[in-house]
Amino acid sequence: MEQRVSLITLAVSDIGKSAAFYDALGWQRVDTEDGIVAYDLIGMTLGLYPRDKLAEDIGLPVEELGNGAMTLGYNTREKPEVAVVLAAAKAAGATVLKEAGDVFWGGHHGYFADPDGHVWEVAHNPFSKLSEAGEFRWNGHE
Amino acid sequence: MEQRVSLITLAVSDIGKSAAFYDALGWQRVDTEDGIVAYDLIGMTLGLYPRDKLAEDIGLPVEELGNGAMTLGYNTREKPEVAVVLAAAKAAGATVLKEAGDVFWGGHHGYFADPDGHVWEVAHNPFSKLSEAGEFRWNGHE
Repeated sequence: MEQRVSLITLAVSDIGKSAAFYDALGWQRVDTEDGIVAYDLIGMTLGLYPRDKLAEDIGLPVEELGNGAMTLGYNTREKPEVAVVLAAAKAAGATVLKEAGDVFWGGHHGYFADPDGHVWEVAHNPFSKLSEAGEFRWNGHE
Repeated sequence: MEQRVSLITLAVSDIGKSAAFYDALGWQRVDTEDGIVAYDLIGMTLGLYPRDKLAEDIGLPVEELGNGAMTLGYNTREKPEVAVVLAAAKAAGATVLKEAGDVFWGGHHGYFADPDGHVWEVAHNPFSKLSEAGEFRWNGHE
């Protein structure tokens, strides 16, 4: 199994409401079939899919699906950008779980939850090679 | 907020056990600090982090963290590869939730859960532009 992820699927309770949130962040939808909303993340995809249909698709009871044990990360280029992104997410309808603040390891971060409780970490990591790799990739596609 | 994800963090109950699973898939760890295990996904990172520490970090009670409402996707180049990847995951310690089979929309897929219940969809989608984009990106880095 190659070391990669092609798709992140968020189980959502109301696909229109959830898509409105990502749209409000300024994200552009990809054209997809009815009942699925997808955002192209430069060679990877973030998909929104109804919670009951996802549970049925996987073959798990819907009550076994939950939120928050997996988080999505968003790294910023500059430290002050963390607060700006949290504010933008809040304005789009997110709940800020942790305001921007310094972290013991030398970084700066905060958390927000999207309308379905999916947790995003917004972070500035001045030291990480991983962060640089992510920025390099992004810059390479601008 | 730019349209991207930098990091996927999986909350895990036993980081050594979870890392052993991803190691058994043949994945290579990035050198990181103690207590965190990270896999570089070509410009993105998959991180493993203890469930209680993640909950503390986010500021949520640990019982509000769950599994499965977010899935990770892995697209294959060929249809028979879906069953091969599911078997490889099973051999590495995963639970197969749905064996490889045709899907109504013309694709072929299956699901497995990692040792902490994080759900992966393994799929072959012969039609999707998204799939092609993912393959293009991967090929571009080989």
